[in-house]
Amino acid sequence: VRNFVEAIARKRDGRELEATDLRAFVRGAAVGSLPDEQLAAMLMAICIRGASAGETQTLVEAMRDSGTCWGLGQRYPQAVDKHSTGGVGDSVSLVFAPLVAACGVQVVAMAGAGLGHTQGTLDKLGAIRGFRAAGNRREAIERLDACGVSFAAQSEEIAPADKKLYLLRDTTATVPSLPLIVASIMSKKLAVGARRLVLDVKCGSGAFCKTPEAARELAGALVSVARRAEVDVRAVVTAMDQPLGPNLGCASEVRAALAVLHGGGDSRLRELTVALAAEALELAGRDAAGARQELERRLADGTAAARFEAMVHAHGGDPDERRLARPTRSVPVPAGRGGYVTAIEAETLGWVAVVLGAGRRSQGDVPDPAAGVAVHARVGDRVAAGQSLATLEFGARALDEEELTARTAAAFTLGEEPVTAPPLVMWRLGASA
Amino acid sequence: VRNFVEAIARKRDGRELEATDLRAFVRGAAVGSLPDEQLAAMLMAICIRGASAGETQTLVEAMRDSGTCWGLGQRYPQAVDKHSTGGVGDSVSLVFAPLVAACGVQVVAMAGAGLGHTQGTLDKLGAIRGFRAAGNRREAIERLDACGVSFAAQSEEIAPADKKLYLLRDTTATVPSLPLIVASIMSKKLAVGARRLVLDVKCGSGAFCKTPEAARELAGALVSVARRAEVDVRAVVTAMDQPLGPNLGCASEVRAALAVLHGGGDSRLRELTVALAAEALELAGRDAAGARQELERRLADGTAAARFEAMVHAHGGDPDERRLARPTRSVPVPAGRGGYVTAIEAETLGWVAVVLGAGRRSQGDVPDPAAGVAVHARVGDRVAAGQSLATLEFGARALDEEELTARTAAAFTLGEEPVTAPPLVMWRLGASA
Repeated sequence: VRNFVEAIARKRDGRELEATDLRAFVRGAAVGSLPDEQLAAMLMAICIRGASAGETQTLVEAMRDSGTCWGLGQRYPQAVDKHSTGGVGDSVSLVFAPLVAACGVQVVAMAGAGLGHTQGTLDKLGAIRGFRAAGNRREAIERLDACGVSFAAQSEEIAPADKKLYLLRDTTATVPSLPLIVASIMSKKLAVGARRLVLDVKCGSGAFCKTPEAARELAGALVSVARRAEVDVRAVVTAMDQPLGPNLGCASEVRAALAVLHGGGDSRLRELTVALAAEALELAGRDAAGARQELERRLADGTAAARFEAMVHAHGGDPDERRLARPTRSVPVPAGRGGYVTAIEAETLGWVAVVLGAGRRSQGDVPDPAAGVAVHARVGDRVAAGQSLATLEFGARALDEEELTARTAAAFTLGEEPVTAPPLVMWRLGASA
Repeated sequence: VRNFVEAIARKRDGRELEATDLRAFVRGAAVGSLPDEQLAAMLMAICIRGASAGETQTLVEAMRDSGTCWGLGQRYPQAVDKHSTGGVGDSVSLVFAPLVAACGVQVVAMAGAGLGHTQGTLDKLGAIRGFRAAGNRREAIERLDACGVSFAAQSEEIAPADKKLYLLRDTTATVPSLPLIVASIMSKKLAVGARRLVLDVKCGSGAFCKTPEAARELAGALVSVARRAEVDVRAVVTAMDQPLGPNLGCASEVRAALAVLHGGGDSRLRELTVALAAEALELAGRDAAGARQELERRLADGTAAARFEAMVHAHGGDPDERRLARPTRSVPVPAGRGGYVTAIEAETLGWVAVVLGAGRRSQGDVPDPAAGVAVHARVGDRVAAGQSLATLEFGARALDEEELTARTAAAFTLGEEPVTAPPLVMWRLGASA
């Protein structure tokens, strides 16, 4: 304990930590050999003082090594992993995984449960009856061999230090720290062990990174850690100034994904999924133009949709879309005036969806698959007074409709002049690596 | 909990805390309504980001109000409290209290147990057989009425928030924080409630404040809080570049104090005690010259020594000096070469004394009254090779004599040129208030 107090003091004073200090910190989190107050003090010192690239790398590797490493890249050298830093209405993973697998490239995905205003992929998959993510290496291999995709849930055995620190960060106001975010993401990726990685770094009012500069910094830090660990990586900074897709909610996002997989669906959701899937195919050696063509073909000819069905089967689930939960009641949110939609607060809509039941307000909550928000108006659209901007989709909870309607309406800014939404893909990193 | 996370985030980002945030923090520490990891995160954020004068004042008052306020100043308007920020070989309190009381001014002293390299006054008094500090207001009044002095121990009822935070700061590397130090000191002073206060802010290698600037800053912050609470206050910045008195250790420091009380004793210990006692008498309305004369007279004519005896009796102790513990074995530490003593690392000597048994290495330790270090050479002295610089005084512990001798010798720097030690009283604050 005496030595760890000295390590905390070092970071408190803005000095560089020794590798042994960082390993003691991670071991302390993983096996409980340090009390929570010492972990919290170190987290806050790192949050305020930052960490060097070398410290971040040591932290990532120590967190990776705090549990079991699946090393799936050794068995599936082509397999790709994808990560998003957390958006609203972002159902990309549900389309990306079967689509890329349908092109012959396995997809290894460590999916998280949502906390805060974003919904987690694992919660959305939970809307599919019987769906069970892989909990260990054997189950991941079974799923990959069966359908080319494995969704895995973070278990006790993968980076247990991250699990502990993630919960502590939430209660100690140490979530917004670049090195801690990088370590949390990359330790799990490296433990699962895919050798190829596509990163979707969200940027805008609905994301952790509010500015392009912050998003580029995070993307750069993630890419740097991946490269040092000899992972082929592409990072894309994408717009999160408004919800990505037309739905927020577990069952409704599965439906939005199925619409794209069947060749139609929302154009923004489709555009971003194809862009990220193209990065994955390029990592697997395809050329850019060929990759795009193949992806469009797989969406058009039904092979992507068929792969989704195979993927759900391989995970023990029932792929029948008719079995997905439906809202018990739908309440439209009309525009109070006419005009052009100039901004949509994605974070506010995310919180409304959570209140309706689509997410977790605390660790113990179980999301309600039926609940959510459907978004009808997008930035740049012209709406008339009284036209529906969004629909509140109620699940099992009895809630104050008026307050939620007012909050939802207030998330839409209407102006006199038309505006153009920024491009979905704002910046790419890693293509020339 | 959600609100307190927002409060932590505010301080993390360097913004000012609301009074309600600070009160929630203090209440959380006092009654356990906040988990240790949130307290620790807030402590680290305050440690790195600092606190404004207003925040510090709110923190002090909330900590004061976390327990019982004795309000002794209402009953004894003249009574004075004295505080030292922690020195080595500093037996001033043991002389100051009976000396000032012998001049007709009551002394209310909240004495602490030592932790780290300094010994606490309570531990030194513990070397006197049967001595029991006041644990509540009634006991303090009994002692004050009997002898004009009450030594009190921090109990569960005085500033319980401070007790909790003090222990947490020790394990989370958040001890060196000006606002936290000010809050810890002043919350207890204000809870006991004397209306007059003399502060001895130590400055130098053996003190928390290593530089005159740091000491002045701390003195200024303490004086500012005292004045806002309508306490008459004097602060004196004094040298702690070497041990103050000739002894480190519980029984030996009582002996050093008795030597001064009987009109002799160490000149530095005597000089600083008289300087601080003069501040106390001036606060009580005496003029500076008259105060000095009276103090010297009380030391010379035996009334101060008699008051010590009465004080020990009033606290249930046995004042017979012959009953104080003696070392089981004494080992001289000779100078390896001749020369002038140019510096003495007080902190190193303090740690040697702790290892010998004179202090606490952890909360559960009970100090050994017999153990300590006697210091023979002072800064500016000329010593011959082989002359004794100090003596290790062993108590009950069996220890490696050679290593301790080497560490002790290394604490003395010898040079070719004579040097002059800085004046004991470096700076005074508050006299013109």
